[in-house]
Amino acid sequence: MTEKNEKNPSGKTPNPQVSRRNLLVGAAAGTIGAAPFAAAPAGAAAAEDVVDLTREHAFYGAAEQAGIRTPPQRYAVYMTFDLTSPRAADLQVLLARWSGAIAQLMKGQTIGPVEPMRNSGVGFDTGEALDLGPASLTVTVGLGPRVFTDAYGLAQRKPALLRELMALPSDTLKPELSGGDLSLQACADDPQVAYHAIRDLARIAKDTGTAATRWTVMGFGRASAGKGQSTPRNLLGFKDGTRNIKDDADFEQFVWTKAGPQWERHGTYQVARKIQMHIENWDTDRVSDQNNVLGRHKISGAPLTGSDEFDTPDFGKKQADGTLIIPATAHIRLAAHENNGGIKILRRSYNYTDGINQFGLLDAGLLFIAYMNDPAHFEAIQTRLGASDGLNEYISHIGSAIFFVPPAPQNGSYIGEALFA
Amino acid sequence: MTEKNEKNPSGKTPNPQVSRRNLLVGAAAGTIGAAPFAAAPAGAAAAEDVVDLTREHAFYGAAEQAGIRTPPQRYAVYMTFDLTSPRAADLQVLLARWSGAIAQLMKGQTIGPVEPMRNSGVGFDTGEALDLGPASLTVTVGLGPRVFTDAYGLAQRKPALLRELMALPSDTLKPELSGGDLSLQACADDPQVAYHAIRDLARIAKDTGTAATRWTVMGFGRASAGKGQSTPRNLLGFKDGTRNIKDDADFEQFVWTKAGPQWERHGTYQVARKIQMHIENWDTDRVSDQNNVLGRHKISGAPLTGSDEFDTPDFGKKQADGTLIIPATAHIRLAAHENNGGIKILRRSYNYTDGINQFGLLDAGLLFIAYMNDPAHFEAIQTRLGASDGLNEYISHIGSAIFFVPPAPQNGSYIGEALFA
Repeated sequence: MTEKNEKNPSGKTPNPQVSRRNLLVGAAAGTIGAAPFAAAPAGAAAAEDVVDLTREHAFYGAAEQAGIRTPPQRYAVYMTFDLTSPRAADLQVLLARWSGAIAQLMKGQTIGPVEPMRNSGVGFDTGEALDLGPASLTVTVGLGPRVFTDAYGLAQRKPALLRELMALPSDTLKPELSGGDLSLQACADDPQVAYHAIRDLARIAKDTGTAATRWTVMGFGRASAGKGQSTPRNLLGFKDGTRNIKDDADFEQFVWTKAGPQWERHGTYQVARKIQMHIENWDTDRVSDQNNVLGRHKISGAPLTGSDEFDTPDFGKKQADGTLIIPATAHIRLAAHENNGGIKILRRSYNYTDGINQFGLLDAGLLFIAYMNDPAHFEAIQTRLGASDGLNEYISHIGSAIFFVPPAPQNGSYIGEALFA
Repeated sequence: MTEKNEKNPSGKTPNPQVSRRNLLVGAAAGTIGAAPFAAAPAGAAAAEDVVDLTREHAFYGAAEQAGIRTPPQRYAVYMTFDLTSPRAADLQVLLARWSGAIAQLMKGQTIGPVEPMRNSGVGFDTGEALDLGPASLTVTVGLGPRVFTDAYGLAQRKPALLRELMALPSDTLKPELSGGDLSLQACADDPQVAYHAIRDLARIAKDTGTAATRWTVMGFGRASAGKGQSTPRNLLGFKDGTRNIKDDADFEQFVWTKAGPQWERHGTYQVARKIQMHIENWDTDRVSDQNNVLGRHKISGAPLTGSDEFDTPDFGKKQADGTLIIPATAHIRLAAHENNGGIKILRRSYNYTDGINQFGLLDAGLLFIAYMNDPAHFEAIQTRLGASDGLNEYISHIGSAIFFVPPAPQNGSYIGEALFA
C-alpha cells in the first residue's frame, strides 16, 4: 500500500494492520475535529456506510500505477481512444501531458485555470469538479497493441505478452464497443470527479490531435471487493468478487509483470469486457436455479457446499443421489483457480446501465475489468466460461479490449517515458 | 421537514435551526460512537464531504411526497411508463403495490423475499441493494395527463392545471425521450440504491401487465441546491441553482397546489426535460463569453454585477459605455423571477451522460426536473429562454414530460387512493 490515506498526506506507509475500513472511520472523525483516531466499532459494517470524499491517492512514486491494487472506489468511467497522429512524438507528448494532468486531478485540483487571466482565453479545466475534492480518484493509463508498431518506432518495445485477445466462445463483440490504442480507467468515490477527469483528459487528446474517443462505459456501483472491503453485488443480485485476489503474494504471482526490460516490470495487462446482462430474463428465473447457475446462495454468497461466504467451495461434494452439489456448469466451478491450473486474475468490475433498449427492456450489465501478468490467463478462464457457463443464457460479451499498463512514473517522469528513451 | 434524519429515527421534527449539514456531521459522528452531536466546524464545507448512507426519509405521513422539498440527494434514476392496461382497477392496484414497495425501499429493506422459501420460486426482490442501506432514498410518483381520461373513468378527476406542455421555442424533442403516463423519480446518495428501486418497481408494473417502460435517465451528480446545501455544478462547469427555491414561503406560494379537491392539495406538477449539452463546443468557448452567456462568473458563481454567489443580480446596471453588464440574452436575466412577473419554480436537476455519440463527441447534459403549482410557470420561463437564451447555441431540449404528483399517502393508504374513491 502506497496510497496516502490521510487528509494531509504524509507520504508514510500506513500501518499494514490498519484496514481501509478503519482509515475511513478515522478520516470521518477528522472532519468533525472532535473524535480521536478510532478503531472500527463492533458491528463494523457501518463504517463502510460513511464515504469520505477528501481521501486522495498518490500518482507518483509507487512501483505500480494506482487504480489496480487500490481498493475499488465506488464509481468508474472507462474510456478507450484511437491514435489519430502517426507521430511517436505526439504520443509521447500526450502521455506526458496526461500524466501531469492526472497527478493534479488525483490531488483534487484542476488541471489548469478554469478562468484564465482576465477571462480572455479558453479554460484549461472545464470546472465541473471544482469544490468536489479528490474523492479517492485514480486514473490508470493503458497502452494497446497498435501502439507498439513500426509506425511509432515502438515495435521492438512491445511488451512480451501484449497482443489482441483470441476469439472466445460465445463472444458477440461489437466493433464500436471494442478495441482502442489507449485506455483510461478513472475510479472515484464521486462519479462526477471521475467523469470530469475523463472529459478533461479526452479534451487534451483531441486538442493535441493525437487521439480520439472510441468507446466508454460509466460504472455506477463497484462489483469487486478489494482487501478489507465487503463484497458488493452485481446486477444479478449476487455478491461478486468473494474469491478475488486480495493478498500481496497473489498480486506478486498473478498481477505484476516480473520479467522483461525494466520499464515493463511492475506493469500488468488490463482486459476490459462490456458484459450485457439480460436482467429481465434473469429476474424471471427461480432463485434455486440462479443459485445453481452461480454455484452460490444469493443472499449469503456462500458456496452451495457451505454456509459462509468465505467457505471454500467443495467442488467434489455430491448429493445423496450422486449429483454434484455445485453443478458442472456453475460459474464458480468453471472460474475457480482449482479448476484452471491454479490461475487467478484480479477483477475490478463495475455495474453499468444503458437505460432501456429498443424492446423496452432494461439494458444493463457489468463493465468487467481484470488485471493479470499474462493475457492467456483470462483467455483460459473465459474459454471455459464461454463454452459451458450456465450464465451464458443471461449474459453477452459485447465489448472487449486489451492494454498493457506500464508501471507508475516517479516524480518528474511520466507514464511510458522509458518507451521513448 | 418531516424526514427522519437520525440513524434511529424518532419521528420527531428536527430543530429547524439545525441545518442538514449539521445533521450530516452528527450522523457521521454517530457511526464512530465517540463524538457528541457537534455544530458544523469552521470552514464547514468539509461536512458535505462525508456521505452517511444510513440516512432514511419517511414515505408515509407527511403532507407532500418526499423527493421534492427533500434536499437533493447525490444521484437519481428517472423513468416514465406507458399504461398498457385499459382497466382502472389495474392502475389502482399498481399504485397500491408501488406505494407499499416504495415504503419498504425507503427504509433500506427489500420489497419481499430475495430467496423465497426453499428457493422454490422467483425472488420478489432482485437483491442488488441488499446491504446498501437506505442511502436517503426517495421515490416520487407522478401521474400523466392520459391517466385522467374516460378510459379509466378518471376524466372528472383531472387536476385543474394538468395538460400536455405547449410547444416551446427551440424544442427539438424526440418522441422516444418524451411523455409517459406515470413517472418515478428515485433519488439516493447511492446510485445502485436508486437503480434497484426503479428496476424493482418497473418489474411490478410489467408483471401486473399494467405499465411498460418508456424512457429513463440516470443522473450521476446533483445539479440543484436545496436548503442548507452548497450549490453544485452542472456539466457547463457553472454553479446551478443559486437562486433556487429554498424557503418555506416560496414552497407554499410556488410549489404546492392549494386549490381544488382535497386530494390535489399538497400535490405539485413535475416537468422533466432531457437537455443535451454540447459540451465539447462549450469547452472551446472563451470563459469570458461563457460568463456572459450565463450572466455569472464561472468559479465564484457571483452575478456579473456582484462578487459573491448570493449577491442579488443588478439587471439594470450598465458599463461606462452604456451596455448592460448582465447581457440581454444572459440565462439568469431571462430566467429571473424579477423578469418573469415574480414567477419561481423549484429545480431538482441532475447531470447525465450517454457516453459518446455517433460523431465521437461526449454525449452529456442535464436531466432538468422542476416542480411548480402551475405548469404555465415553466412555459412562461422556457418561452423566454427558448427564444433568446444565449445558451441555446450549446443545448438542445430533446426530452419532455409532465406529471401531476399527488400528496403523500397516510399510513395504511397509497398514492392516489382518493382518485378511486
